[in-house]
Amino acid sequence: MAQKPSIPKGTRDFSPAEVAKRNYIFDTIRNQFEIYGFQPIETPSFENLETLMGKYGDEGDRLIFKILNSGDYLNKVDDRTLEEKDAAALTPQISEKALRYDLTVPFARYVVMHQNEIDLPFKRYQIQPVWRADRPQKGRFREFYQCDADVVGPSSLLQEVELIQLYDAVFADLGLEKVTIKINHRKILSAIAEVIGAHEQLIPFTVALDKLDKIGEEGVIREMAASGISEAAIRKAMPLFSISGDQDQALGVLSDFLKESKTGEEGIEALRMITATIGKLGLSSCRLQVDVTLARGLNYYTGAIFEVSAPEGVQMGSIGGGGRYDDLTGIFGLKDLSGVGISFGLDRIYLVLEELGLFPETVEESVQVLFVNFGEKEALAALPLIGELRKAGIKSDLYPTDAKLQKQLKYANNRKIPYVVLLGKDELEQNTVVVKDMAKGSQKTYDWKHLPEFIKTL
Amino acid sequence: MAQKPSIPKGTRDFSPAEVAKRNYIFDTIRNQFEIYGFQPIETPSFENLETLMGKYGDEGDRLIFKILNSGDYLNKVDDRTLEEKDAAALTPQISEKALRYDLTVPFARYVVMHQNEIDLPFKRYQIQPVWRADRPQKGRFREFYQCDADVVGPSSLLQEVELIQLYDAVFADLGLEKVTIKINHRKILSAIAEVIGAHEQLIPFTVALDKLDKIGEEGVIREMAASGISEAAIRKAMPLFSISGDQDQALGVLSDFLKESKTGEEGIEALRMITATIGKLGLSSCRLQVDVTLARGLNYYTGAIFEVSAPEGVQMGSIGGGGRYDDLTGIFGLKDLSGVGISFGLDRIYLVLEELGLFPETVEESVQVLFVNFGEKEALAALPLIGELRKAGIKSDLYPTDAKLQKQLKYANNRKIPYVVLLGKDELEQNTVVVKDMAKGSQKTYDWKHLPEFIKTL
Repeated sequence: MAQKPSIPKGTRDFSPAEVAKRNYIFDTIRNQFEIYGFQPIETPSFENLETLMGKYGDEGDRLIFKILNSGDYLNKVDDRTLEEKDAAALTPQISEKALRYDLTVPFARYVVMHQNEIDLPFKRYQIQPVWRADRPQKGRFREFYQCDADVVGPSSLLQEVELIQLYDAVFADLGLEKVTIKINHRKILSAIAEVIGAHEQLIPFTVALDKLDKIGEEGVIREMAASGISEAAIRKAMPLFSISGDQDQALGVLSDFLKESKTGEEGIEALRMITATIGKLGLSSCRLQVDVTLARGLNYYTGAIFEVSAPEGVQMGSIGGGGRYDDLTGIFGLKDLSGVGISFGLDRIYLVLEELGLFPETVEESVQVLFVNFGEKEALAALPLIGELRKAGIKSDLYPTDAKLQKQLKYANNRKIPYVVLLGKDELEQNTVVVKDMAKGSQKTYDWKHLPEFIKTL
Repeated sequence: MAQKPSIPKGTRDFSPAEVAKRNYIFDTIRNQFEIYGFQPIETPSFENLETLMGKYGDEGDRLIFKILNSGDYLNKVDDRTLEEKDAAALTPQISEKALRYDLTVPFARYVVMHQNEIDLPFKRYQIQPVWRADRPQKGRFREFYQCDADVVGPSSLLQEVELIQLYDAVFADLGLEKVTIKINHRKILSAIAEVIGAHEQLIPFTVALDKLDKIGEEGVIREMAASGISEAAIRKAMPLFSISGDQDQALGVLSDFLKESKTGEEGIEALRMITATIGKLGLSSCRLQVDVTLARGLNYYTGAIFEVSAPEGVQMGSIGGGGRYDDLTGIFGLKDLSGVGISFGLDRIYLVLEELGLFPETVEESVQVLFVNFGEKEALAALPLIGELRKAGIKSDLYPTDAKLQKQLKYANNRKIPYVVLLGKDELEQNTVVVKDMAKGSQKTYDWKHLPEFIKTL
């Protein structure tokens, strides 16, 4: 009995049109990564289990896809684990490899393993899929691509400036306008918690603050209170929820608020330098906004943090994010290496471009010239002409069978092929072809010898 | 204690230089795939276990990487399987997904699942990694890329002709000369077995024949005898081991040999048409050779079969192969769909290009212009100039710290950066930059306003 085929939930097949659109985004990002001096690396799809476990919290550990050992993998498992049906204890005994969960940990592993070959500063980019056993839902998949650019080595703030310019360059190339790049600094968040007397609740404080645009001021206050932050502390923090005005004004308010904290001052000084430099250099399609409520995953960021919102009017969370971390490679034994990086959210950018109709019209154009097939003799005569077009780099094809003309033209239409060439019995006798412009409906006859004239018009 | 990091055996990290070289091959192949009218699809890295199992033989089933189910996966396992430590029986109970083993079965699954969206003829290409739990050895990896192009729908031999042209176009673009494309036909192999009276031993007969260039005539005879083929049959087949001369002569000998077999005649007729058409159209870097000893995996091929040998003088098995199959999608319930495809062996092509020194010199050039960093003030002045270069699409970078000039120049050298720009204290005062040509050792001063002149020289 034949199987009715399906694919695992949370995964996707990509059709030619979808691949073309995804590659358009990948190519745009990759091109700017390279213009900005980043170099590509690639790491294996699976890593040793112990490389990944314990790096993403308990939840992360659960969401990592583990690969079953090959062969008689139960051979050395202890009987008790099996008797007790203890899956958690069994896993490390029957699995020693796991699929990549993100690109950051493999990158850290790469830097440490290859430290003698790498010339610091190392600007690397990596565009590869990652896998997570998350519950699939709209816009969340079990296999998806990450596009990361990181600089390791130098701690200069010019890196942050360049990464903001890089975001701007990519979104400008994609034709996205009014994209907001929100920026904050980990030291500012620490200083706020310190100043309001909640530094022991730094994490719940920032987690709650991060939700301001989702649950509103009242919601944040309720969540902070629930996590044990005192009423006095919350009251003290409240003015920060509604900082407005331009960058300088916002930083002024903040500076005033954090005047007792040296840490806070350092964070503000960093943001001042970054915003002032970007102010001088200018951005084309993005605007930079200091957002004191931006927290992001606090696990490894230690300096500036970024998050990019979709253009105004498009409902679609963040389309990118990143930040500076001071000890990425420490987990693998290489201390004191600072890094800063950004990431692009491919799937969301795809949806935004689709919603705004920003994919170029030609992106789906897979074949430029289709020769109609009128039978063996005509087809054989067409082959050398098609060869000429292909040598000139023009995507060309011969319809593979002598199906009815109407069917062949319909195929050309469906595939959005702009030119169809007719080489039938009459043309064969006269050594000519008729070129049909499918958009205009016009047609023109060329002598075989004059095919280069047609090629020039493409 | 920090972990000493490593990667699973049989997998690889790719450095920037390696990624650049691999991408050069991928881009060349992809470009010709598209020029020949093929469209890209992508399928998920893992498929449902039952989609893959039973498609590659017992050995294949063992080599498929299975993914452990998430959560409390032992919950519903029957106790007896656990008591008996029966790994083979346990696997389907704790794993429902597996990593792609090749691109052919997922493609068949794709065609069947999307048959209503696909416009036949469907020319698809797919360039994605596959995974096999093979014993790693030199040149054999557990994760590697396949690059496949297939046409499904039409049974016209023009497809075979086009695929040979496509091989030729790719190898010509890569600068590979004297590549041999060997061709045979499944019907010829069947007919030989029939004519010598060994049609019941077709598979051992062809498996032995396939080894002629490895184990020689005597070895083949010994292997055939060992698999139960009669001495009379072997003696009858012997003239075929040493067919020589050009295509027409070879096909003549074969035709004479198989004159009693209708199947054989059909195979010979097909090869005659393909070789005659290719003869007329001509090839640039490959030669086509009928090779009656070529067998390839016989599992699903039913028509023409191809195999590409590395250029003369390079010791490196085949760098590509393919053929026609008549019932690819039958396993998933869609009958009578004929297809023909070819595949490129990325890793071996890489080694061949490396051995022959055929990678373009510029392939590793990651940054074209590096600005030396003389300190904050000079660096800030450099940023807008770097911005100008980047806007013009030139890969440019600022060294991220004001390290010693010597160190910065060494970095530029190591990264093979052709131009270094100096913007120090003097240049800052005079609004100039000094551009150093690293290959020639010469340098030239430009006014900031005249930077476009420099850009034009790149």
